[in-house]
Amino acid sequence: MVTSSRPNRPLATGRPTIADVARVAGVSTAVVSYAVNGRPGVSGATRDRVLRVADQLGWRPHAAAQSLRARSEVVAMLVTTRPHPPSTHLFELVVGAQQVLNRAGVELALHLEATHAEAGAAATRWWAERRFDAFVIPDVTDDDARVSALRRRHAPVVLVGGGKPSPSVAVVDAGNDGFVEAVELLHALGHRRIGYVGGSEALRSTARRIRVLRRVVESAEGEFFVATGDGDDGTATVIHRMLSADDAPTALVTDDDHGALIALDTARRLGLRVPWDLSVIAGSDSTMCQLAEPPITALPFPGAVLGAAIGAATLGLLGAAPATPDDAAPVLDARTPAPPQVILRATTAPPPRST
Amino acid sequence: MVTSSRPNRPLATGRPTIADVARVAGVSTAVVSYAVNGRPGVSGATRDRVLRVADQLGWRPHAAAQSLRARSEVVAMLVTTRPHPPSTHLFELVVGAQQVLNRAGVELALHLEATHAEAGAAATRWWAERRFDAFVIPDVTDDDARVSALRRRHAPVVLVGGGKPSPSVAVVDAGNDGFVEAVELLHALGHRRIGYVGGSEALRSTARRIRVLRRVVESAEGEFFVATGDGDDGTATVIHRMLSADDAPTALVTDDDHGALIALDTARRLGLRVPWDLSVIAGSDSTMCQLAEPPITALPFPGAVLGAAIGAATLGLLGAAPATPDDAAPVLDARTPAPPQVILRATTAPPPRST
Repeated sequence: MVTSSRPNRPLATGRPTIADVARVAGVSTAVVSYAVNGRPGVSGATRDRVLRVADQLGWRPHAAAQSLRARSEVVAMLVTTRPHPPSTHLFELVVGAQQVLNRAGVELALHLEATHAEAGAAATRWWAERRFDAFVIPDVTDDDARVSALRRRHAPVVLVGGGKPSPSVAVVDAGNDGFVEAVELLHALGHRRIGYVGGSEALRSTARRIRVLRRVVESAEGEFFVATGDGDDGTATVIHRMLSADDAPTALVTDDDHGALIALDTARRLGLRVPWDLSVIAGSDSTMCQLAEPPITALPFPGAVLGAAIGAATLGLLGAAPATPDDAAPVLDARTPAPPQVILRATTAPPPRST
Repeated sequence: MVTSSRPNRPLATGRPTIADVARVAGVSTAVVSYAVNGRPGVSGATRDRVLRVADQLGWRPHAAAQSLRARSEVVAMLVTTRPHPPSTHLFELVVGAQQVLNRAGVELALHLEATHAEAGAAATRWWAERRFDAFVIPDVTDDDARVSALRRRHAPVVLVGGGKPSPSVAVVDAGNDGFVEAVELLHALGHRRIGYVGGSEALRSTARRIRVLRRVVESAEGEFFVATGDGDDGTATVIHRMLSADDAPTALVTDDDHGALIALDTARRLGLRVPWDLSVIAGSDSTMCQLAEPPITALPFPGAVLGAAIGAATLGLLGAAPATPDDAAPVLDARTPAPPQVILRATTAPPPRST
C-alpha cells in the first residue's frame, strides 16, 4: 500500500521564513536581520529573543544556509551489480565510512549502476558537473572502467580491495592476515589439501588473496585448490566440481559467510559430513555462520574498521580535517596488532583418516 | 593495510579548467567561452573543435556546472541503530529507492545515527541549513522522534512502514497480504495454534501486522501467539519462551529470514523437529532461507518494488518529475494483483497428531 498526499501548497513555504521569525519575536524583519548578523542597533534582550525564536522555528538566514550547503562536500560510492553483485557486507562498509565522513561534514551518497562502464561514464559526467567531490569504488577489478575513467580526470578516488595509489588515488584493503591464520589452523589440524572459494579472480582482492594463500599452503608442502565463481549458482557449481574430483581438498576457506553456507549445502548434496569429511572456515563471520547447522568456524569481518578506513582515506584526499583523532587513521594493522582470531565453531576438525 | 597518498598539489587543479580547453583547442579562453555559450563570432568548425575538446577533457563551464549542482536535490535516509537495528533487507530498499531517485536527478544519502532523538535533531538542523530537500524514515515507531521533529518543520518526509500521511508526509508500506496468505496456508494444513515472531510492537509495521494476523487466525477460531524481541538474543529468548509453554503454537510465521533461522535454531535446541513438530514460514525470503537445513518456506521480499515506491513517493513530495512512467507509481498492489505467493520449501507440514 502506498499512501501519498500531494502537497496542496508549495512545500518550500513549509520552511520557516524571516517573516515567521519577525512575527513570533514581535519585531520587524529588518530587526531580525540585524540581530542574526550581529549588527548594532538592536538591544541585547531583543537579539536574544530573536535568536531564540529563530532557533525554535529552525530558521537560519538564507545566505548562511546557502554557504553551509555550498561548503558541504559529497562523496559518491559507485556500486555495480555486474560483473560482481555487491558483497553481503557492503552495507557495513557504507555505514562505517559514512560515520567518519559525516562527523567531518561530508556526505556519502550511494550510487548503483549496472556495469563498470556505465558507472565510469556517469561518474565522469558528475565530476565535470562538480556534483561530487570524490568517489569510493568497492570491489575493484583488473581493467576496472570506473577506475580508468576517474583516474584520467585526476578525480579523488578511494579504491577498496586493491589498485595502484597515486596523488589522487588512495587504496584501502583489509589485508589477508586472518586468512593466513585460517590456513595455519587447518595445517595444525593435519590438512594438506586446502581449497579457497572466492569471487572472480578479476577481483583484485581475490587475486591477491589467492597468491598469498597459495604461497602459505605450498610452503608447507600442501596442495592448494581454487574455486571462483559469481553468484550463488556459480559458487555452488565450482564448489561441486572441486569437491567431486579425485584427491579433492579436505578443507575449504571461503571468501565470506555466504560462500561457506553454499559450501555446507554442496557438501550435504555430495554426502560429505562436515566436519568429519570436510572442514569449512568462513572468511567473514555473521549471524548466519552462528545459526548454520553445524555452526561455522569463521574469521571476524572488520566491517566497521574497514569502513572507517575508507572514510579516513576519503577525508585525506579531500584535504578535509577528521572530526576526531580516531577518525584520522583507523589503520587495520594498528588496531589489530595480532591477526584477527579465528572464531572456532563446529566445522573444523582433523581430515579423514584415509588421507 | 591502508595505503593513502596525499596529493602533492591541490586536487582542485586536477579538474580541467577553461585554460586547458583553450590550450588543447588552440584558441583563447574567450573563444572557448563564446563557443560553449553559443554566442556569435565563432566559426562552426571552431565551435565543434572546442566542444569536442571540452568533452574529451571532461570540462564544463563553471556556471552551468554550478547551476546543475544547485538544481540537484538531495534526500537523506535516516537510519538508526536503536531502538531497532536496521533490517537485513534495508540495503535492498536503499538500492531500489536510489535508482528511481537518480533517474530523476535526485541523490540519496544515507545517514546513520544512534538514536531516533539524535537523528531527529540532526535532520532538523540539516533541514534549516537546506542541506537536504526531503527525508526517508525507515522502521517508523510510535512516538518516533525523527517523525515528530520533521513534521513540526513541515519538511517533506517519506515514512516506511506506517504513519499518518499529510501534505508533507507520504507513507509507504508493503502491506500484509503475503502474511495473510501464509497464515491461510497453515490453516489449510490443519494448524490452529499459530505464532508470529517480529520486532518490537512499537514498530508501526509490526503492530499493524499483529492486528491483521490476529483477526485472520481468530476468525478461523484459532489461537494466536505473539513473540516480539529486539536483536538476535532477544528474538531467541522470546521464541524459546513461546515454544516452551504448554499448548505452544504448532506453526510460526516470522517477520524476516533472520527470525526464521533463529526459530529453526531454537526449535533444534528444544528438541523439536521441523516440520514434524513445528512448521516455520519466513516473512521475507533470501538465499539464507534456501540454504538453511531444512530449507525454509518463505514469502518473497518485495525489496525492489518497495524501494521504488519509496523513490516515487519522495519525487511526489519534491514535485519532481519521475524519469519513466514505471517510476511514477510502483504501487505494490497494482503490480502484484494476486497476493505474493508463498514459496513452499521444507519447513511446512500438518501439525503433530496429538493436537
